Amino acid sequence: MGMTMTEKILAAHCGQTSVKAGQLIMADVDMVLGNDITAPVAIGEFGKFGAGTIFDKKKVALVPDHFTPAKDIKAALQCQCLRNFAMEHDIENYFEVGRVGIEHALLPEQGLVNAGDLIIGADSHTCTYGALGAFSTGVGSTDMACGMATGKAWFKVPQSIKFNLTGTLGKYVCGKDVILHIIGMIGVDGALYGSMEYSGPGVASLSIDDRFTMANMAIEAGAKNGIFPVDEVTLAYLAAHCKRSPVIYEADSDAQYTRVIDIDLSSIRPTVAFPHLPSNTRTIDETGTVKVDQVVIGSCTNGHISDLRQAAEILKGRKVAPWVRTIILPATQEIWLQAMEEGLFRIFVDAGAAVSTPTCGPCLGGHMGILAAGERAVATTNRNFVGRMGHVKSEVYLASPAVAAASAITGYITDPAKVQEA
Amino acid sequence: MGMTMTEKILAAHCGQTSVKAGQLIMADVDMVLGNDITAPVAIGEFGKFGAGTIFDKKKVALVPDHFTPAKDIKAALQCQCLRNFAMEHDIENYFEVGRVGIEHALLPEQGLVNAGDLIIGADSHTCTYGALGAFSTGVGSTDMACGMATGKAWFKVPQSIKFNLTGTLGKYVCGKDVILHIIGMIGVDGALYGSMEYSGPGVASLSIDDRFTMANMAIEAGAKNGIFPVDEVTLAYLAAHCKRSPVIYEADSDAQYTRVIDIDLSSIRPTVAFPHLPSNTRTIDETGTVKVDQVVIGSCTNGHISDLRQAAEILKGRKVAPWVRTIILPATQEIWLQAMEEGLFRIFVDAGAAVSTPTCGPCLGGHMGILAAGERAVATTNRNFVGRMGHVKSEVYLASPAVAAASAITGYITDPAKVQEA
Repeated sequence: MGMTMTEKILAAHCGQTSVKAGQLIMADVDMVLGNDITAPVAIGEFGKFGAGTIFDKKKVALVPDHFTPAKDIKAALQCQCLRNFAMEHDIENYFEVGRVGIEHALLPEQGLVNAGDLIIGADSHTCTYGALGAFSTGVGSTDMACGMATGKAWFKVPQSIKFNLTGTLGKYVCGKDVILHIIGMIGVDGALYGSMEYSGPGVASLSIDDRFTMANMAIEAGAKNGIFPVDEVTLAYLAAHCKRSPVIYEADSDAQYTRVIDIDLSSIRPTVAFPHLPSNTRTIDETGTVKVDQVVIGSCTNGHISDLRQAAEILKGRKVAPWVRTIILPATQEIWLQAMEEGLFRIFVDAGAAVSTPTCGPCLGGHMGILAAGERAVATTNRNFVGRMGHVKSEVYLASPAVAAASAITGYITDPAKVQEA
Repeated sequence: MGMTMTEKILAAHCGQTSVKAGQLIMADVDMVLGNDITAPVAIGEFGKFGAGTIFDKKKVALVPDHFTPAKDIKAALQCQCLRNFAMEHDIENYFEVGRVGIEHALLPEQGLVNAGDLIIGADSHTCTYGALGAFSTGVGSTDMACGMATGKAWFKVPQSIKFNLTGTLGKYVCGKDVILHIIGMIGVDGALYGSMEYSGPGVASLSIDDRFTMANMAIEAGAKNGIFPVDEVTLAYLAAHCKRSPVIYEADSDAQYTRVIDIDLSSIRPTVAFPHLPSNTRTIDETGTVKVDQVVIGSCTNGHISDLRQAAEILKGRKVAPWVRTIILPATQEIWLQAMEEGLFRIFVDAGAAVSTPTCGPCLGGHMGILAAGERAVATTNRNFVGRMGHVKSEVYLASPAVAAASAITGYITDPAKVQEA
């Protein structure tokens, strides 16, 4: 019986010729990731392992990206814990403020993710690396601790859903709209503990940044991971970033899927997830009149250079509405520099937006733009649960960078095409 | 009997031909300032005034700069209070995130400060505007409330100390070193409720940014205000920013001073204020070995363009020490843009520093770089009291942008001249 991409990667990492969905395995990991929120807990648990040594100093990444630059004393102490641990154990993939970025953009950029890798991270959006044909998934801090000590993690091999993509995306439609459309269709538990495997002729037209966004939000459908086939787009990205040779796993033609879903990319409209679930989606044509107080463009979901370019295309030569606070959060220092050199920052600041240093910031209610009671944000982030960006009486509307930028201009949730036509 | 600059401005604003030190007066104010920390308290008190109307909508400035973009729900609610009040009362000088800056750099830049003005602000560093030949001083939130309602404030006319400046500053020495030198000499209560009036041939050589820094820190010597004579440097700045004609007050030759202090600018060395008082100063030659964890360059004290240029001169082509977090905080969006266009941001990020959107940030322990227990920061900010930038067991060393940048490179408090020679 054939295997899916995910099954093949898992089989290769547990020394078996084949695995099947539902099987429990113990696998070798290629990278263990933690951040300033989750790693301190893992570090505490790590001390309970006898040897007290890291299995491979090159295969642990510690990224203080959530509440940094430290937003308060507690955050400072968490970061201090990370920093001390990194120095004590000589962990080379520790990234300090000024050299840091949002973990899920930073690791691929720093060449720490390769096609065929198995990566665990104590952060739910670790599934992002599926964009590069890796198996990656979020784990708890105790699993992270175990991973740092042993280089291993246990898994139940997930079932897979196949998304067969055809067509190409229309103007002002991007990967974010596709994944919101999918979550709207299958629900926040639509892929529960499953793998979302993308395939079909439509994949080739998706940029690597679109794929990062789509893999990133697999967890919002309850999935264990999201994964893309390795093609020329992937190989070009890896050639530019990763020193290792890609290890390519292709799904067998007779691989088993619980479900096959056809998606015609050309039919997808700009899509917005209304409060308080990512599955509560409406197309931009169905949003009605929603006045917004804040617009956030960035995060691990949409803080890549093409996201910023899409926002800049809309914001160029325009001003954000007087009542709107617009906060731009490039995902890494490299993206920050590139956006600056391309003139995007000039466009953003001229439009009346604030440009932050890379940080997860308001996405999870951390800092850099927390909402007050009754306030509404349009955000390119990944979750819009009650109170996610601040007060329990605030609301978050998830959207693409283009929709977010258009909404910043008018002060209402807006179709970018309408702003460009105006 | 002659009058000092401060006495002349106060006299003109209370309709008297002369006032003298110690006299109680009720004066008209040209501007009333509040921020996201202090204005909400003032707004609460304002409601107790009968009419409930602002005396002059053009003469109130509300600047959400301290904990913004909102660092938490409480900050968001404080900003919401400011925003709602500004809209309700049609206050035109309200500055939203994305269009905001640190109040004491923003108001002069926006042309809201003129020579000869009398300005009160619910922030202790309101004394900054003395750089432009205005009388300005910090007040409590209730005085701010009264000022917004009546356009008036009461004062005890301060005594004055005259600082007679001669000579010119050496390389890598700036206004920050001068004011730290002075505070080190006279103490944190050396000018208690007095006016620090600068004069002498040395004034002409000081840039407007040097003057902003020196006036800004008058409060750190306990002064009511710091004030500079209006000269060509002042007039050039005002011509570029303020639409009103300057009103120039010159101290009389027979004005009364409690003390005259001669300062030879050429004798001043780069100066550092050790924990935990701004008066605990040592020259850079006496600092010994002090390892640092964080460097902060910015704030209302040293976030102007010339401050950033001085830091960039040292950081250019170099890397900050691996253990140092370096955070750059330009004071306003205009300064942010200018620094970007001049290539300073490229230098900062290449060196391994983070560039923030304008905010007061860590200066007062707000956010964007709070210290953990045992950590040390070199900061271009204005106060180094116990716990000012975070944990009560952290330490802040006050210095110039050049010293801060040099210390970022080596990871120890360092003379910029030594970095440049190396």
